[in-house]
Amino acid sequence: MQTLYRADFEAMERRYRATFFNTLSGYKSISLVGTASAQPNLAIFNSVFHVGANPAALGLVFRPDTVERHTLNNILDQGRYTINHITPAFFRQAHQTSAKYPAQVSEFEACGLTPVFREGNPAPYVGESPVQIGLSFAERIDIRLNGTIIIVGTITDVSLDTTFVEYDGFVRLEDLGTITSLGLDAYFTTSGLGRLPYARVDNPVI
Amino acid sequence: MQTLYRADFEAMERRYRATFFNTLSGYKSISLVGTASAQPNLAIFNSVFHVGANPAALGLVFRPDTVERHTLNNILDQGRYTINHITPAFFRQAHQTSAKYPAQVSEFEACGLTPVFREGNPAPYVGESPVQIGLSFAERIDIRLNGTIIIVGTITDVSLDTTFVEYDGFVRLEDLGTITSLGLDAYFTTSGLGRLPYARVDNPVI
Repeated sequence: MQTLYRADFEAMERRYRATFFNTLSGYKSISLVGTASAQPNLAIFNSVFHVGANPAALGLVFRPDTVERHTLNNILDQGRYTINHITPAFFRQAHQTSAKYPAQVSEFEACGLTPVFREGNPAPYVGESPVQIGLSFAERIDIRLNGTIIIVGTITDVSLDTTFVEYDGFVRLEDLGTITSLGLDAYFTTSGLGRLPYARVDNPVI
Repeated sequence: MQTLYRADFEAMERRYRATFFNTLSGYKSISLVGTASAQPNLAIFNSVFHVGANPAALGLVFRPDTVERHTLNNILDQGRYTINHITPAFFRQAHQTSAKYPAQVSEFEACGLTPVFREGNPAPYVGESPVQIGLSFAERIDIRLNGTIIIVGTITDVSLDTTFVEYDGFVRLEDLGTITSLGLDAYFTTSGLGRLPYARVDNPVI
Protein backbone atom coordinates (compact mmCIF):
# COMPACT_ATOMS: atom_id res chain seq x y z
CA MET A 1 0.00 0.00 0.00
CA GLN A 2 1.35 3.40 -1.03
CA THR A 3 0.18 6.83 0.13
CA LEU A 4 -0.32 9.64 -2.39
CA TYR A 5 -0.48 13.28 -1.27
CA ARG A 6 -1.62 16.53 -2.84
CA ALA A 7 1.69 17.04 -4.62
CA ASP A 8 1.15 13.63 -6.25
CA PHE A 9 -2.40 14.60 -7.29
CA GLU A 10 -1.11 17.82 -8.84
CA ALA A 11 1.55 15.90 -10.78
CA MET A 12 -1.09 13.66 -12.40
CA GLU A 13 -2.06 14.26 -16.03
CA ARG A 14 -5.48 15.97 -16.12
CA ARG A 15 -7.54 13.10 -17.55
CA TYR A 16 -5.68 10.51 -15.43
CA ARG A 17 -6.52 12.54 -12.32
CA ALA A 18 -10.18 12.88 -13.37
CA THR A 19 -10.53 9.11 -13.85
CA PHE A 20 -8.59 8.29 -10.65
CA PHE A 21 -10.80 10.43 -8.39
CA ASN A 22 -13.97 9.53 -10.22
CA THR A 23 -13.42 5.83 -9.49
CA LEU A 24 -12.11 6.44 -5.97
CA SER A 25 -15.49 7.68 -4.76
CA GLY A 26 -16.79 4.12 -5.20
CA TYR A 27 -19.71 2.47 -6.96
CA LYS A 28 -22.52 4.69 -8.11
CA SER A 29 -26.07 4.43 -9.26
CA ILE A 30 -26.38 4.77 -13.02
CA SER A 31 -29.57 6.06 -14.62
CA LEU A 32 -31.02 7.65 -17.71
CA VAL A 33 -32.54 11.08 -17.13
CA GLY A 34 -35.35 12.00 -19.52
CA THR A 35 -36.40 15.60 -20.14
CA ALA A 36 -38.67 17.42 -22.57
CA SER A 37 -37.58 19.99 -25.11
CA ALA A 38 -38.34 20.19 -28.85
CA GLN A 39 -37.21 16.54 -28.93
CA PRO A 40 -37.37 13.98 -26.11
CA ASN A 41 -33.95 14.34 -24.45
CA LEU A 42 -32.09 11.52 -22.71
CA ALA A 43 -28.76 11.53 -20.86
CA ILE A 44 -26.88 9.07 -18.66
CA PHE A 45 -26.08 10.14 -15.07
CA ASN A 46 -24.05 8.45 -12.34
CA SER A 47 -24.95 11.01 -9.70
CA VAL A 48 -28.48 10.24 -8.49
CA PHE A 49 -28.62 10.09 -4.69
CA HIS A 50 -31.26 9.51 -2.02
CA VAL A 51 -32.43 12.67 -0.29
CA GLY A 52 -35.48 11.51 1.62
CA ALA A 53 -38.59 9.31 1.71
CA ASN A 54 -41.22 11.77 2.98
CA PRO A 55 -41.43 13.71 0.79
CA ALA A 56 -39.80 11.16 -1.50
CA ALA A 57 -36.90 13.03 -3.07
CA LEU A 58 -33.79 12.37 -5.13
CA GLY A 59 -30.74 14.53 -5.77
CA LEU A 60 -28.88 14.81 -9.09
CA VAL A 61 -25.37 16.28 -9.34
CA PHE A 62 -24.25 18.32 -12.36
CA ARG A 63 -20.51 18.86 -12.45
CA PRO A 64 -19.32 22.05 -14.12
CA ASP A 65 -17.25 20.28 -16.78
CA THR A 66 -19.97 18.02 -18.17
CA VAL A 67 -21.97 18.38 -21.36
CA GLU A 68 -25.26 17.61 -19.60
CA ARG A 69 -26.42 21.23 -19.68
CA HIS A 70 -29.30 20.29 -22.02
CA THR A 71 -30.73 18.18 -19.22
CA LEU A 72 -30.19 20.89 -16.60
CA ASN A 73 -31.75 23.57 -18.76
CA ASN A 74 -34.74 21.37 -19.60
CA ILE A 75 -35.34 20.58 -15.91
CA LEU A 76 -35.18 24.27 -15.01
CA ASP A 77 -37.45 25.18 -17.96
CA GLN A 78 -40.06 22.45 -17.55
CA GLY A 79 -39.86 21.57 -13.87
CA ARG A 80 -40.32 17.88 -14.73
CA TYR A 81 -37.95 14.99 -15.49
CA THR A 82 -37.64 11.23 -15.22
CA ILE A 83 -34.99 8.86 -13.79
CA ASN A 84 -34.82 5.35 -15.30
CA HIS A 85 -32.74 2.34 -14.19
CA ILE A 86 -30.39 0.58 -16.63
CA THR A 87 -29.95 -3.18 -17.21
CA PRO A 88 -27.25 -5.25 -19.01
CA ALA A 89 -29.67 -5.55 -21.97
CA PHE A 90 -29.28 -1.86 -22.92
CA PHE A 91 -26.24 -0.49 -21.06
CA ARG A 92 -24.42 0.17 -24.36
CA GLN A 93 -27.35 2.22 -25.68
CA ALA A 94 -27.48 4.05 -22.35
CA HIS A 95 -23.75 4.85 -22.52
CA GLN A 96 -24.15 6.08 -26.11
CA THR A 97 -26.54 8.84 -24.92
CA SER A 98 -23.42 10.60 -23.56
CA ALA A 99 -22.30 11.43 -27.12
CA LYS A 100 -22.69 15.09 -28.04
CA TYR A 101 -25.79 14.89 -30.21
CA PRO A 102 -27.08 18.24 -31.52
CA ALA A 103 -30.22 19.60 -29.86
CA GLN A 104 -32.46 18.68 -32.80
CA VAL A 105 -31.57 14.96 -32.47
CA SER A 106 -33.38 12.84 -29.87
CA GLU A 107 -31.02 10.48 -28.05
CA PHE A 108 -33.92 8.01 -27.88
CA GLU A 109 -33.94 7.65 -31.65
CA ALA A 110 -30.17 7.92 -32.11
CA CYS A 111 -29.46 5.23 -29.47
CA GLY A 112 -32.39 2.89 -30.08
CA LEU A 113 -34.39 3.42 -26.90
CA THR A 114 -38.16 3.88 -26.56
CA PRO A 115 -39.73 7.03 -25.12
CA VAL A 116 -42.84 6.37 -23.03
CA PHE A 117 -45.16 9.10 -21.74
CA ARG A 118 -47.41 9.17 -18.68
CA GLU A 119 -50.19 11.64 -18.10
CA GLY A 120 -49.22 14.93 -16.52
CA ASN A 121 -45.50 14.63 -17.28
CA PRO A 122 -44.05 16.12 -20.48
CA ALA A 123 -40.74 14.33 -19.83
CA PRO A 124 -40.19 10.91 -21.46
CA TYR A 125 -39.66 7.68 -19.52
CA VAL A 126 -37.46 4.89 -20.94
CA GLY A 127 -39.65 1.97 -22.03
CA GLU A 128 -36.79 -0.57 -21.68
CA SER A 129 -36.19 0.38 -18.03
CA PRO A 130 -37.51 -1.89 -15.23
CA VAL A 131 -37.77 1.08 -12.83
CA GLN A 132 -39.15 4.37 -14.19
CA ILE A 133 -39.41 7.36 -11.84
CA GLY A 134 -41.18 10.68 -12.48
CA LEU A 135 -39.93 13.79 -10.67
CA SER A 136 -40.83 17.40 -10.08
CA PHE A 137 -38.13 20.05 -9.55
CA ALA A 138 -37.88 21.20 -5.92
CA GLU A 139 -34.59 22.97 -5.26
CA ARG A 140 -31.33 24.03 -6.90
CA ILE A 141 -28.14 24.10 -4.82
CA ASP A 142 -24.84 25.60 -5.97
CA ILE A 143 -21.60 24.27 -4.47
CA ARG A 144 -19.21 27.21 -4.32
CA LEU A 145 -16.04 25.06 -4.26
CA ASN A 146 -16.12 24.19 -7.96
CA GLY A 147 -19.39 25.28 -9.53
CA THR A 148 -21.14 21.92 -9.10
CA ILE A 149 -24.93 22.18 -9.18
CA ILE A 150 -27.30 19.86 -7.31
CA ILE A 151 -30.91 19.53 -8.38
CA VAL A 152 -33.30 18.10 -5.80
CA GLY A 153 -36.62 16.76 -7.06
CA THR A 154 -39.63 15.19 -5.41
CA ILE A 155 -40.90 11.88 -6.79
CA THR A 156 -44.34 12.05 -8.38
CA ASP A 157 -44.65 8.44 -9.62
CA VAL A 158 -42.78 5.14 -9.75
CA SER A 159 -43.39 2.36 -12.27
CA LEU A 160 -42.00 -1.14 -11.66
CA ASP A 161 -43.10 -4.77 -11.34
CA THR A 162 -44.19 -4.69 -7.69
CA THR A 163 -43.65 -8.45 -7.29
CA PHE A 164 -39.97 -7.46 -6.82
CA VAL A 165 -40.80 -5.39 -3.72
CA GLU A 166 -40.22 -7.29 -0.45
CA TYR A 167 -42.68 -7.28 2.46
CA ASP A 168 -40.70 -4.45 4.12
CA GLY A 169 -40.42 -2.17 1.09
CA PHE A 170 -36.98 -3.38 -0.10
CA VAL A 171 -36.83 -3.37 -3.91
CA ARG A 172 -34.86 -6.36 -5.28
CA LEU A 173 -32.89 -4.36 -7.86
CA GLU A 174 -30.49 -7.29 -8.34
CA ASP A 175 -33.42 -9.35 -9.67
CA LEU A 176 -34.87 -6.43 -11.66
CA GLY A 177 -31.49 -6.21 -13.43
CA THR A 178 -30.45 -2.72 -12.32
CA ILE A 179 -26.69 -2.28 -12.80
CA THR A 180 -24.11 -0.15 -10.99
CA SER A 181 -21.19 1.89 -12.34
CA LEU A 182 -17.70 3.14 -11.59
CA GLY A 183 -16.00 6.19 -12.99
CA LEU A 184 -17.38 7.36 -16.32
CA ASP A 185 -17.28 4.16 -18.37
CA ALA A 186 -17.36 0.96 -16.27
CA TYR A 187 -20.58 -1.00 -15.67
CA PHE A 188 -21.23 -3.90 -13.29
CA THR A 189 -23.85 -6.42 -12.29
CA THR A 190 -24.12 -7.22 -8.59
CA SER A 191 -24.17 -10.33 -6.43
CA GLY A 192 -25.72 -10.19 -2.96
CA LEU A 193 -23.62 -10.72 0.18
CA GLY A 194 -26.87 -10.48 2.13
CA ARG A 195 -29.03 -8.09 4.07
CA LEU A 196 -27.98 -7.60 7.67
CA PRO A 197 -30.30 -6.98 10.62
CA TYR A 198 -30.52 -3.56 12.28
CA ALA A 199 -27.30 -3.23 14.28
CA ARG A 200 -27.70 -3.22 18.06
CA VAL A 201 -25.08 -2.67 20.75
CA ASP A 202 -26.20 -5.74 22.71
CA ASN A 203 -26.68 -8.14 19.79
CA PRO A 204 -23.85 -7.54 17.31
CA VAL A 205 -24.07 -8.98 13.78
CA ILE A 206 -20.35 -9.76 13.67
CA MET B 1 -45.40 -3.11 -14.39
CA GLN B 2 -47.53 -1.03 -12.02
CA THR B 3 -47.41 2.74 -11.45
CA LEU B 4 -47.51 4.14 -7.92
CA TYR B 5 -48.41 7.79 -7.30
CA ARG B 6 -48.07 10.18 -4.37
CA ALA B 7 -51.27 8.94 -2.76
CA ASP B 8 -49.75 5.45 -2.78
CA PHE B 9 -46.52 6.75 -1.20
CA GLU B 10 -48.51 8.46 1.54
CA ALA B 11 -50.43 5.26 2.24
CA MET B 12 -47.20 3.33 2.86
CA GLU B 13 -46.20 2.48 6.44
CA ARG B 14 -43.37 4.82 7.50
CA ARG B 15 -40.52 2.28 7.63
CA TYR B 16 -41.75 0.51 4.47
CA ARG B 17 -41.68 3.86 2.65
CA ALA B 18 -38.20 4.66 3.97
CA THR B 19 -36.83 1.33 2.73
CA PHE B 20 -38.66 1.52 -0.60
CA PHE B 21 -37.27 4.95 -1.52
CA ASN B 22 -33.86 4.21 -0.09
CA THR B 23 -33.44 1.22 -2.43
CA LEU B 24 -35.09 2.97 -5.38
CA SER B 25 -32.25 5.48 -5.69
CA GLY B 26 -30.02 2.58 -6.79
CA TYR B 27 -26.65 1.18 -5.79
CA LYS B 28 -24.48 3.31 -3.58
CA SER B 29 -20.92 3.55 -2.45
CA ILE B 30 -20.46 2.25 1.09
CA SER B 31 -17.64 3.49 3.30
CA LEU B 32 -16.48 3.85 6.87
CA VAL B 33 -15.96 7.44 7.98
CA GLY B 34 -13.33 7.91 10.71
CA THR B 35 -13.27 10.99 12.93
CA ALA B 36 -11.41 12.07 16.05
CA SER B 37 -12.99 12.84 19.41
CA ALA B 38 -12.06 11.55 22.89
CA GLN B 39 -12.18 8.10 21.24
CA PRO B 40 -11.51 7.21 17.59
CA ASN B 41 -15.00 7.34 16.06
CA LEU B 42 -16.15 5.20 13.13
CA ALA B 43 -19.47 5.16 11.28
CA ILE B 44 -20.77 3.54 8.08
CA PHE B 45 -22.07 5.83 5.29
CA ASN B 46 -23.73 5.06 1.97
CA SER B 47 -23.73 8.67 0.82
CA VAL B 48 -20.22 9.49 -0.38
CA PHE B 49 -20.28 11.09 -3.82
CA HIS B 50 -17.76 12.49 -6.30
CA VAL B 51 -17.59 16.29 -6.36
CA GLY B 52 -14.45 16.95 -8.39
CA ALA B 53 -10.89 15.95 -9.25
CA ASN B 54 -9.11 19.33 -9.12
CA PRO B 55 -9.30 20.06 -6.29
CA ALA B 56 -10.02 16.42 -5.48
CA ALA B 57 -13.20 16.54 -3.43
CA LEU B 58 -15.89 14.22 -2.07
CA GLY B 59 -19.35 14.96 -0.73
CA LEU B 60 -21.00 13.22 2.23
CA VAL B 61 -24.75 13.44 2.89
CA PHE B 62 -26.19 13.52 6.43
CA ARG B 63 -29.91 12.95 6.48
CA PRO B 64 -31.79 14.62 9.34
CA ASP B 65 -33.14 11.37 10.79
CA THR B 66 -29.83 9.54 11.21
CA VAL B 67 -27.81 8.95 14.36
CA GLU B 68 -24.56 9.96 12.66
CA ARG B 69 -24.40 13.33 14.38
CA HIS B 70 -21.24 12.27 16.24
CA THR B 71 -19.47 12.10 12.89
CA LEU B 72 -20.88 15.43 11.72
CA ASN B 73 -19.96 17.18 14.96
CA ASN B 74 -16.44 15.72 14.90
CA ILE B 75 -15.89 16.85 11.30
CA LEU B 76 -17.09 20.37 12.14
CA ASP B 77 -14.96 20.43 15.33
CA GLN B 78 -11.75 18.97 13.91
CA GLY B 79 -11.94 19.82 10.22
CA ARG B 80 -10.46 16.40 9.37
CA TYR B 81 -11.90 12.96 8.61
CA THR B 82 -11.23 9.78 6.66
CA ILE B 83 -13.23 7.69 4.16
CA ASN B 84 -12.37 3.98 3.92
CA HIS B 85 -13.64 1.35 1.45
CA ILE B 86 -15.26 -1.87 2.70
CA THR B 87 -14.64 -5.47 1.53
CA PRO B 88 -16.56 -8.75 2.03
CA ALA B 89 -13.96 -9.69 4.69
CA PHE B 90 -15.27 -7.07 7.16
CA PHE B 91 -18.65 -5.88 5.92
CA ARG B 92 -20.38 -7.27 9.04
CA GLN B 93 -18.03 -5.34 11.34
CA ALA B 94 -18.60 -2.25 9.17
CA HIS B 95 -22.40 -2.64 9.44
CA GLN B 96 -22.12 -3.07 13.21
CA THR B 97 -20.63 0.44 13.55
CA SER B 98 -24.18 1.72 12.91
CA ALA B 99 -25.25 0.54 16.39
CA LYS B 100 -25.82 3.37 18.89
CA TYR B 101 -22.63 3.05 20.93
CA PRO B 102 -22.20 5.65 23.68
CA ALA B 103 -19.65 8.41 23.01
CA GLN B 104 -17.06 6.89 25.37
CA VAL B 105 -16.94 3.64 23.34
CA SER B 106 -14.80 3.48 20.19
CA GLU B 107 -16.55 1.65 17.36
CA PHE B 108 -13.12 0.39 16.29
CA GLU B 109 -12.76 -1.59 19.51
CA ALA B 110 -16.43 -2.58 19.78
CA CYS B 111 -16.57 -3.88 16.19
CA GLY B 112 -13.08 -5.38 15.88
CA LEU B 113 -11.49 -2.97 13.41
CA THR B 114 -8.01 -1.42 13.55
CA PRO B 115 -7.44 2.35 13.77
CA VAL B 116 -4.41 3.53 11.81
CA PHE B 117 -3.00 7.07 12.00
CA ARG B 118 -1.05 9.09 9.45
CA GLU B 119 0.93 12.21 10.21
CA GLY B 120 -1.00 15.44 10.22
CA ASN B 121 -4.45 13.88 10.51
CA PRO B 122 -6.02 13.34 13.97
CA ALA B 123 -8.78 11.22 12.36
CA PRO B 124 -8.29 7.43 12.26
CA TYR B 125 -8.06 5.39 9.04
CA VAL B 126 -9.33 1.77 8.93
CA GLY B 127 -6.38 -0.62 8.74
CA GLU B 128 -8.45 -3.39 7.11
CA SER B 129 -9.53 -1.12 4.23
CA PRO B 130 -7.84 -1.46 0.81
CA VAL B 131 -8.54 2.23 0.01
CA GLN B 132 -8.01 4.80 2.78
CA ILE B 133 -8.71 8.47 2.03
CA GLY B 134 -7.86 11.48 4.21
CA LEU B 135 -10.00 14.62 3.90
CA SER B 136 -10.14 18.20 5.04
CA PHE B 137 -13.47 20.00 5.58
CA ALA B 138 -14.25 22.53 2.82
CA GLU B 139 -17.94 23.45 2.81
CA ARG B 140 -21.26 22.75 4.55
CA ILE B 141 -24.48 22.88 2.52
CA ASP B 142 -27.98 22.77 4.00
CA ILE B 143 -30.83 21.43 1.86
CA ARG B 144 -33.92 23.36 2.88
CA LEU B 145 -36.41 20.73 1.66
CA ASN B 146 -35.86 18.32 4.57
CA GLY B 147 -32.90 19.44 6.66
CA THR B 148 -30.36 17.22 4.91
CA ILE B 149 -26.76 18.43 5.34
CA ILE B 150 -23.99 17.92 2.78
CA ILE B 151 -20.36 18.13 3.83
CA VAL B 152 -17.85 18.69 1.04
CA GLY B 153 -14.22 17.87 1.79
CA THR B 154 -11.01 18.07 -0.20
CA ILE B 155 -8.82 14.97 -0.37
CA THR B 156 -5.45 15.34 1.36
CA ASP B 157 -4.11 11.78 0.87
CA VAL B 158 -5.02 8.41 -0.61
CA SER B 159 -3.52 5.07 0.44
CA LEU B 160 -3.95 1.98 -1.76
CA ASP B 161 -1.95 -0.69 -3.58
CA THR B 162 -1.16 1.29 -6.73
CA THR B 163 -0.70 -1.88 -8.80
CA PHE B 164 -4.53 -1.80 -9.02
CA VAL B 165 -4.48 1.57 -10.80
CA GLU B 166 -4.74 1.25 -14.61
CA TYR B 167 -2.57 3.21 -17.07
CA ASP B 168 -5.34 5.83 -17.40
CA GLY B 169 -6.03 6.35 -13.69
CA PHE B 170 -8.93 3.87 -13.39
CA VAL B 171 -8.82 2.14 -9.99
CA ARG B 172 -9.84 -1.53 -10.24
CA LEU B 173 -12.11 -1.52 -7.17
CA GLU B 174 -13.59 -4.88 -8.20
CA ASP B 175 -10.13 -6.44 -7.74
CA LEU B 176 -9.39 -4.44 -4.57
CA GLY B 177 -12.57 -5.96 -3.10
CA THR B 178 -14.59 -2.76 -2.62
CA ILE B 179 -18.29 -3.60 -2.22
CA THR B 180 -21.46 -1.66 -3.04
CA SER B 181 -24.73 -1.32 -1.13
CA LEU B 182 -28.46 -0.85 -1.48
CA GLY B 183 -30.84 0.66 1.04
CA LEU B 184 -29.61 0.55 4.62
CA ASP B 185 -28.71 -3.10 5.03
CA ALA B 186 -27.90 -4.89 1.73
CA TYR B 187 -24.33 -5.44 0.51
CA PHE B 188 -23.08 -6.68 -2.87
CA THR B 189 -19.94 -7.68 -4.70
CA THR B 190 -19.72 -6.65 -8.35
CA SER B 191 -18.97 -8.33 -11.66
CA GLY B 192 -17.75 -6.24 -14.59
CA LEU B 193 -19.81 -5.86 -17.76
CA GLY B 194 -16.89 -3.93 -19.19
CA ARG B 195 -15.57 -0.43 -19.73
CA LEU B 196 -16.95 1.30 -22.80
CA PRO B 197 -15.06 3.77 -25.01
CA TYR B 198 -15.87 7.49 -24.94
CA ALA B 199 -19.19 7.81 -26.78
CA ARG B 200 -19.05 9.62 -30.13
CA VAL B 201 -21.89 10.59 -32.43
CA ASP B 202 -20.13 9.14 -35.48
CA ASN B 203 -18.84 5.92 -33.92
CA PRO B 204 -21.55 4.56 -31.60
CA VAL B 205 -20.72 1.81 -29.08
CA ILE B 206 -24.10 0.11 -29.60
